[in-house]
Formats: sequence, C-alpha cells, structure tokens
Amino acid sequence: MNITVPTLLIDKKRLVRNVKRMQQKAINNKVALRPHLKTPQSNGVGEWLREMGIEKIAVSSLRMAAYYAKGGWKDITVAFPLNVLEMDLVNELAASLQLHVLVESIETLTILAASIRHELGVYIEIDAGYGRTGMPALDMAAITEVVEAIAQVDLLHFTGFLIHAGHTYKIRRDKGAMLAIHQKHSEVARALKAHFLPEFPRLEISYGDTPSCSMLDDFSAFDELRPGNFVCYDLTQYHIGSCALEDIAVAMLCPVVALHPKRSEIVVYGGGVHFSKDRIALENGTISFGRVVDWKGKNWTISADYSYVRSLSQEHGVIKASPDLLATTKVGDLLAILPVHSCMTIDLMPYYLSTEGEEIGIWDKS
Amino acid sequence: MNITVPTLLIDKKRLVRNVKRMQQKAINNKVALRPHLKTPQSNGVGEWLREMGIEKIAVSSLRMAAYYAKGGWKDITVAFPLNVLEMDLVNELAASLQLHVLVESIETLTILAASIRHELGVYIEIDAGYGRTGMPALDMAAITEVVEAIAQVDLLHFTGFLIHAGHTYKIRRDKGAMLAIHQKHSEVARALKAHFLPEFPRLEISYGDTPSCSMLDDFSAFDELRPGNFVCYDLTQYHIGSCALEDIAVAMLCPVVALHPKRSEIVVYGGGVHFSKDRIALENGTISFGRVVDWKGKNWTISADYSYVRSLSQEHGVIKASPDLLATTKVGDLLAILPVHSCMTIDLMPYYLSTEGEEIGIWDKS
Repeated sequence: MNITVPTLLIDKKRLVRNVKRMQQKAINNKVALRPHLKTPQSNGVGEWLREMGIEKIAVSSLRMAAYYAKGGWKDITVAFPLNVLEMDLVNELAASLQLHVLVESIETLTILAASIRHELGVYIEIDAGYGRTGMPALDMAAITEVVEAIAQVDLLHFTGFLIHAGHTYKIRRDKGAMLAIHQKHSEVARALKAHFLPEFPRLEISYGDTPSCSMLDDFSAFDELRPGNFVCYDLTQYHIGSCALEDIAVAMLCPVVALHPKRSEIVVYGGGVHFSKDRIALENGTISFGRVVDWKGKNWTISADYSYVRSLSQEHGVIKASPDLLATTKVGDLLAILPVHSCMTIDLMPYYLSTEGEEIGIWDKS
Repeated sequence: MNITVPTLLIDKKRLVRNVKRMQQKAINNKVALRPHLKTPQSNGVGEWLREMGIEKIAVSSLRMAAYYAKGGWKDITVAFPLNVLEMDLVNELAASLQLHVLVESIETLTILAASIRHELGVYIEIDAGYGRTGMPALDMAAITEVVEAIAQVDLLHFTGFLIHAGHTYKIRRDKGAMLAIHQKHSEVARALKAHFLPEFPRLEISYGDTPSCSMLDDFSAFDELRPGNFVCYDLTQYHIGSCALEDIAVAMLCPVVALHPKRSEIVVYGGGVHFSKDRIALENGTISFGRVVDWKGKNWTISADYSYVRSLSQEHGVIKASPDLLATTKVGDLLAILPVHSCMTIDLMPYYLSTEGEEIGIWDKS
C-alpha cells in the first residue's frame, strides 16, 4: 500500500473488542444495544457490526438513514428532531423498513400526522438536564399531550422516550459526577415509565451517550443503549475516562513535510480538513488537536513518550514533538495521530484504510 | 428551489465586489493578485474569477492543484510545504502547467531534485514571525544554501520567497497591531530582495493573508498578493476587521427542527458536519459558531437584531435567538446563518446554491 496523503486507518480488532464489551454490558442489563452509526458513517463498518449480531441502529439524519438502508439495515432510529421538510424521505424509508423518528412538539407532530403514509415509530425526546433539545423531563402535562396526539394517528406508533445525556462529555475522569447525571436520568426514566406504562405497556426508553455507557454498569432503568462513539472511541473519550488509548480504533497517517528542531516541532500534511477543528484541553491547560502514536507499518501502538498536535490550519498540522520523535523523524515519513473527535474526523475522510490493507468506503453526503 | 437540508448559499454579487476591491488594491500597488482558491474549492466559482481577469491561483495541496488544473488553470502555486511522497503528481502537473511549489529545507530539495522531470517553479517559504513553518527570516546563510541548491538543478527555477503572516488572524479590530506585523514582514521582504536580487533579478515575493490584504494599503515591498478567504469572507474576518458583515458572500440555510422559547433558543438542522467546529470568541466573552441573518427567500440581509449559534453538535445547531426571531420562527422554517470560517464550511459541503438559483459544485476530495 502506497500512502502519500492523509489517510484514516481503522483497526477492526480494536473496534470488534469495543463492540463486544458493550454487547456484554447490554446483555448483563437485559437491554437492547442499538449502536449510533453516525460515528463510523460506513456500510462497510456496519457490516462488521451485523456479523456480530447487531440488528438495530441509530443515525443522525434522514439522509444517513437512507444510506444505511442501502446497506440492508431494516430497523433504524433517526436520533434527531424530525425535519418536517423531509417528509418525502420519511415516507420512502418508512415504506421499506422499521423507521423511528423523534418528535418533541405538537407543531411537528401535526405536520407529521398530516403527511405520513406508512407505519412509523415515534419517540418523544426528553431533556433530563443536557439542555440541547427535547421536552423538559418534568413537564408531564405537555408530554402527555404529545403522547395522546401520537396515539390518535393510526400509522404512528408511540415507541417510547429517547434521552441523551450529552453533558457527560464535559466530565473528566470523575465517575462520581458521571453517576450523578446517570442517576438523575434513571429517575426520569422510571418516572416516565410509572406514568405511561399502564396505557402503553410496550413503550421503551432509549438511552445512551458513550461516556455513561462506557463508564457505568447499571442500566436497569432503560430498555435500550444507544451509544455511538464507543465503536471507534477517540482522545476526547480517553480524557473523559471512557476508554484506554489502546481502545481507539482509528488513527490518521500524515506525511511529514517540515521539521523545526529548534522549537521541537514537526509539520505534517494533515489539517482541519482532515481532523476537523475539535480540540481538547489537557490536564495542564494546553490544547491538543491529536496525539502521535507509533506507526509500525501495518498498525500502531501507543508511544511511551508524548507528542501532540498543538495547532491545525486548513492542511497543516503542527506537532510538539518529544526528543525521541524529533530525532527519528524525517521529511517524507508518515506519522500516525489519534483524533480528538473520531465522528468529525471520519466525516471528513473519503474512506478508511483497514490495518489489514482493505479500503472501506465512508458515506459521501453529496 | 426546494431546500430541505442544510444548504450553502453563495452570493456572486458580494463575491465579485470583494474580488474587485482586492484587484484595485493590487493595481494601486503595482503587484500581481494570485487568489488562494482553498477557500471556494470550486471550479465553478473559479470561473467567475477568471471572467474578472484572474489568471494565477494558489492552492493548499497538490490534489487541489490537480482539481483546478481540470478547470483549465495554467499557473498554480501550491502554497504548502512540498509533500515529497507525491512526486508523481508534481511531475504530472508540471508537465502541463506552470506549477510552483514550496521548499524550506535541503532535505526536501534533495528529494525534489532527484525526481523532478519537468520545469518547476520553486519558492522558499519564509517565516517572519507566524511560527507555523518556513525558514527563519534572518537565517540568511541557511536560505542562501537552499537558493544555491535550487539554482543548481536545471529543471528547477527559483521563483522567489513566499511569506504568510497567519498571526494576523489573532488581531481584533486593531489596525496598529496589523500594521506592526505588516511592517516587520515588509522589512524582511526588502532585506531578502537586497540580498538576492543581484543574483536573481526576476525573483518575486508572494505575500498575503486576508486580514492584512484587506485592512492595509501599502504592499510596495512585495510582488504578489495571495489572500484566499477574502473571496467569501466570514465572521472571523468581520471580527478581525477585514470586512463588513455585508461583504460575507456565503450563508448556510438550515431547517428549524425545534423551538425552546423558555430559554430563547431555536434548534436547527445544521451542525459541525456542515459548519465545522471553528468558533469565535465575541467581545463579551461568549463563543459563537455562526450568526443569524434575515433570509428573504432568494438572498439574505443583515439582521438589525442579534441571534447567534451558541453550540454545534454533529448535526444540531443551537441558536440563542432574539425576541423578534423567536416570535417569528416556526418548525420547518429556514434560517440563514453566516459561518465563522468559510474555508472550513465550504470544505464540508457538496455544492453551493447561488442566490440566482444555480447549483455550483464544490471539490469532492475522494
């Protein structure tokens, strides 16, 4: 394999290990696992998950659902507030697979009800503290109004409630803080069930950001786990405490284009258009856009010494290099770099190169 | 036109006005204008510039050069340290057009010299204070060594020096600070010319980030201006002081998917995979990922009131909305949003929709 430009590696062994661990956790809790495939954005990688017994997935847009539908997936939750401008696509997808969408207002539901032509599962998104979107968890009257409105439309099936505790991403290696958020969300889930199970005995509660699903063990308040990033992990998850560096299943290979030994820096071909501009603040206050690992020609290992990407421009990455890295690197070498946010990095790349040498397509949004 | 998903608008009138203004500045200074087309990433938009008399461009990668070569461009500078792993592409391009590359070390030059098979222009990149890459401006001995090495290779032509004052991006509405950087770079340019012009009377100095080219007037120390972002501008340039809000030539149309009146927020379909995660710190310390403007059905105008994107996840944008915006917006509406960093936003989108209703392709890196 002749690598000449920034190339995203994927290690199937690491990925399979990550998925197996989460499958075991779901089994232990007697809950379903519905991986959120906004992270890998790939039917090739999706196939690996299907081989492991995964049958249900979540996605972050209707168009992503259409992409995965082409890959043969038959049970898809679009974990994003329904975009009423895309009702044609909703109908097209709902005609051929088990589709679930998210609704959080009477306004959206009214438009949905007026234009739906096929059976469709409807979740209500609940905001139990994150503050991004969803109906406020305690507003039982408003929630009831939407639930009843769903129940009045023949083609719509009230699937249950979907909750995302995205604020767990702010936590850094603090299991107590993670548990506090988790317990609040578990209480909300139990309250919703106590209120609505009598009328809707089959309702399910879908939960799951990668940090809580990775760090915690008790998911008995829920029916389904829906993490996404855990498939690949990344530096953000490592600093949250969700994974070990060894679990991160993607790394970017970048050609070295300039050396600056006096300031211990190396410039690589690999910038914001490859990694995205997501950053992480390290314990010592410095900002990192990626961490260098040892590229061994077919796979990577975690370096004992520490080198990181201190800045990214459009195509340049500037690495603060350890003395070892600086001494052993020359122009034209390839450096492997763990990304800060794998979902965003993958989104930017046209394909993966597996550590077995196979090219695996990534969804092309165009 | 039926817009149902995040769609990037481009206003040709604004863009043409931006380019004309910079052309006039180049004429006033008797220097060439070589726009850096890493910003529009589009042969369609490039065609607009060619119609205005632009004949030379800069790009940020060899593959981007290959894309623009297909669009008919015949004089291209790859304003990025030469990636020696792509010598096949260098030779392919150099065979059919006037190509210029950047070198900043004997190591890179040695590899280049060993594999070049066609006439090639070579700039030396000089670092006069930015600290990203390039040879230190005052290291005349080292620079001379590389210049002499270029001169010894028949196919290589020493074009001159390329300088990028990227640290002007840190400035916020401070013409004095901008001028201080600019004067230092002008002095460096004059010193380089004084030293090398006797031996290389045709050498040229290429300069130009968008902030200094937009805010300043005297470019007599240079031979060529090479700004990129000015073609479209963006919120970052507005806050630097490079442009008016009215000059920004791109805006993202985003479907409204949820309203949260109690916290004065609107959620749109439009996230990090559309805008990128570049952010800007406003004067009052808040972080913005975009600014809402008034969408008038065919074009946008600048809102008198103020609403901005306070956070972006993968596909969600959360807008802090003015009372007016909140009162007049409903689910299924489209909001127009000025991006923080147009280069990165454009890179993420598959095409532009011109305000005249035409679809214009954006380079697809795959």
